[in-house]
Amino acid sequence: MKETLQKISSVKPDFFEKAQKRLDNLTKPQGSLGRLEEFAGRLVAITENTMPEPGKKVVFTFAGDHGVAEEGVSAYPKEVTPQMVLNFLNGGAGINVLARHAGAEVVVIDIGVDFDFADAVAQHTVPLKMKKVMRGTKNMRKGPAMTREEAEKCINIGIELAAEYAKKGYGLFGTGDMGIANTTPSAAIASILTGKSVSEVTGKGTGIGDDALKNKIKVIGDAIALNKPDPNDPVDVLAKVGGTEIGGIAGLIIGAAANRVPVVIDGFISTAGALIAFCLEPKTKDYMFAAHKSVEVGHAVILEKIGLRPILDLDLRLGEGTGAALAMLMIEAGLKIYREMATFGDAGVATEKKD
Amino acid sequence: MKETLQKISSVKPDFFEKAQKRLDNLTKPQGSLGRLEEFAGRLVAITENTMPEPGKKVVFTFAGDHGVAEEGVSAYPKEVTPQMVLNFLNGGAGINVLARHAGAEVVVIDIGVDFDFADAVAQHTVPLKMKKVMRGTKNMRKGPAMTREEAEKCINIGIELAAEYAKKGYGLFGTGDMGIANTTPSAAIASILTGKSVSEVTGKGTGIGDDALKNKIKVIGDAIALNKPDPNDPVDVLAKVGGTEIGGIAGLIIGAAANRVPVVIDGFISTAGALIAFCLEPKTKDYMFAAHKSVEVGHAVILEKIGLRPILDLDLRLGEGTGAALAMLMIEAGLKIYREMATFGDAGVATEKKD
Repeated sequence: MKETLQKISSVKPDFFEKAQKRLDNLTKPQGSLGRLEEFAGRLVAITENTMPEPGKKVVFTFAGDHGVAEEGVSAYPKEVTPQMVLNFLNGGAGINVLARHAGAEVVVIDIGVDFDFADAVAQHTVPLKMKKVMRGTKNMRKGPAMTREEAEKCINIGIELAAEYAKKGYGLFGTGDMGIANTTPSAAIASILTGKSVSEVTGKGTGIGDDALKNKIKVIGDAIALNKPDPNDPVDVLAKVGGTEIGGIAGLIIGAAANRVPVVIDGFISTAGALIAFCLEPKTKDYMFAAHKSVEVGHAVILEKIGLRPILDLDLRLGEGTGAALAMLMIEAGLKIYREMATFGDAGVATEKKD
Repeated sequence: MKETLQKISSVKPDFFEKAQKRLDNLTKPQGSLGRLEEFAGRLVAITENTMPEPGKKVVFTFAGDHGVAEEGVSAYPKEVTPQMVLNFLNGGAGINVLARHAGAEVVVIDIGVDFDFADAVAQHTVPLKMKKVMRGTKNMRKGPAMTREEAEKCINIGIELAAEYAKKGYGLFGTGDMGIANTTPSAAIASILTGKSVSEVTGKGTGIGDDALKNKIKVIGDAIALNKPDPNDPVDVLAKVGGTEIGGIAGLIIGAAANRVPVVIDGFISTAGALIAFCLEPKTKDYMFAAHKSVEVGHAVILEKIGLRPILDLDLRLGEGTGAALAMLMIEAGLKIYREMATFGDAGVATEKKD
């Protein structure tokens, strides 16, 4: 992990200038394609290539279970985590549909599900990576969710996946998550690493009622009080009140940055992972795109902390990487504008402005 | 026109209920795909089909010139209108790139350009419809931009195109515009039909300076004072201070509604056309999708008047149908979710919520 963090460098401003020069010479009023132009400039700077190719796209959906689910923090039973993983492998989930729509592949990672998928792997076309660190985290209300070693193992799995897919030539990564109860550790991480109170970053997740929300806030408060995670040590925070899939996502982002691959961060759980990555190395921000503005209340708090403006605002709160898949379509639109539009010279269109 | 307006009926609420029933049975927390679910429900209601097919998509880019361009209201010379039309036909403009990205065709309509395209048509693959009503409108600061007959002719051209493409089986329309100076008539229409002052709905268009903006506001005010368009007669407004492409867009929307085809309204100029259509027949609203939130100040005013929430917010201000092409990708995502996701029963995923 440390070695990979040291490899990350900030993107260079002169690439933005080079990109803007081309953008300003395309047959449109300057700046009139707004954020599409921003996306194109960022891709040029990230790849250090003044004519980046639209590469293959992949969404990594990390799945893990959470001991804290036994505290009644979710509207769904814990069995739904492996059931949804099987749904992913069968191609029937939201992320499968939207990734197909975006022309992206889906890779599912069992990084901590409390279920043995050995029998399921062979029968499916969507790949499942068997990277189980543990069969669900421990209940953070009763002690640390993971050991420090387990947390580091999760991050390293993400880093290795990023390196593998960068090497295979993928040009755009997306993050995704599956894990019943995982807005609970995400809110805990958000509270500790942004300094906001637990109630300011805790929402209704998949759809709990008002009483359950009160209980969820209490559970998170108890877990923080008991485990005392060190806000200056993101790995400690991840271990004590985090989750395996959140660690995997943090690692994937770190690996993406180290390999100069742009990475689209999905919703609340993914941004909790992004926040771990950002606190470990703020330069990772240069490689992040925030897919969308989730309805989950803590999401905007994290985005503000990192300094990211979301691309879409469609009231999504599903996770899985669904927002990332959709946002990929907008980022790619920016790249195509940059690559394919005619210049004023090519098209014989007047550039001169009147007085 | 009148006959077509009479054919338009409101969508039926029971189709929304049928759609929601299916959406709630898909493997996701209820409502968690936010606006994608809204889009799917609307497509079901518009088409009166509980399993709508993803049909062919087409963006209609209406092009026309404006006599008021001689008043210095635009940053670009009027010659840019035909130059950009030729750029569209060559596939090099923003709308070509983004329509390709969205899998949509582009149809360009010369409804009022001050240029003869006779020689250009044969050489290009992007179709140009020769529907010229006039070679540019007259300068509305000196008199009406069009006669009432010319304005009705523009609307009828849009209605006929909608009928033609509905008959050919296209399932989703987008609107677009090209016409140097056309934010000026759009702002005039917005002011008259929403009751807001001219300065509240007039922006910098393609990028004029502060002095030019003051002049533009004055020009619009003068044109309204001179021509006295009747706010209760949308065709009178279109004729006196509108434009040919705005009339074509209004007609296309009316025709889409009459043929039960959903139509994606692009930016400011297109919503000015949508406002004409809405004021002629408010039921047209049921068939409209607002593509995006433009940076042009009058755009939000019109959207509020009609009661549309934009899909995207990407700081676009190019027009041509670029925002419509991008938004089509989101609407189609909603349809695919509706059609392709597994149900809880199919996937063996638990639906029961805990207490």
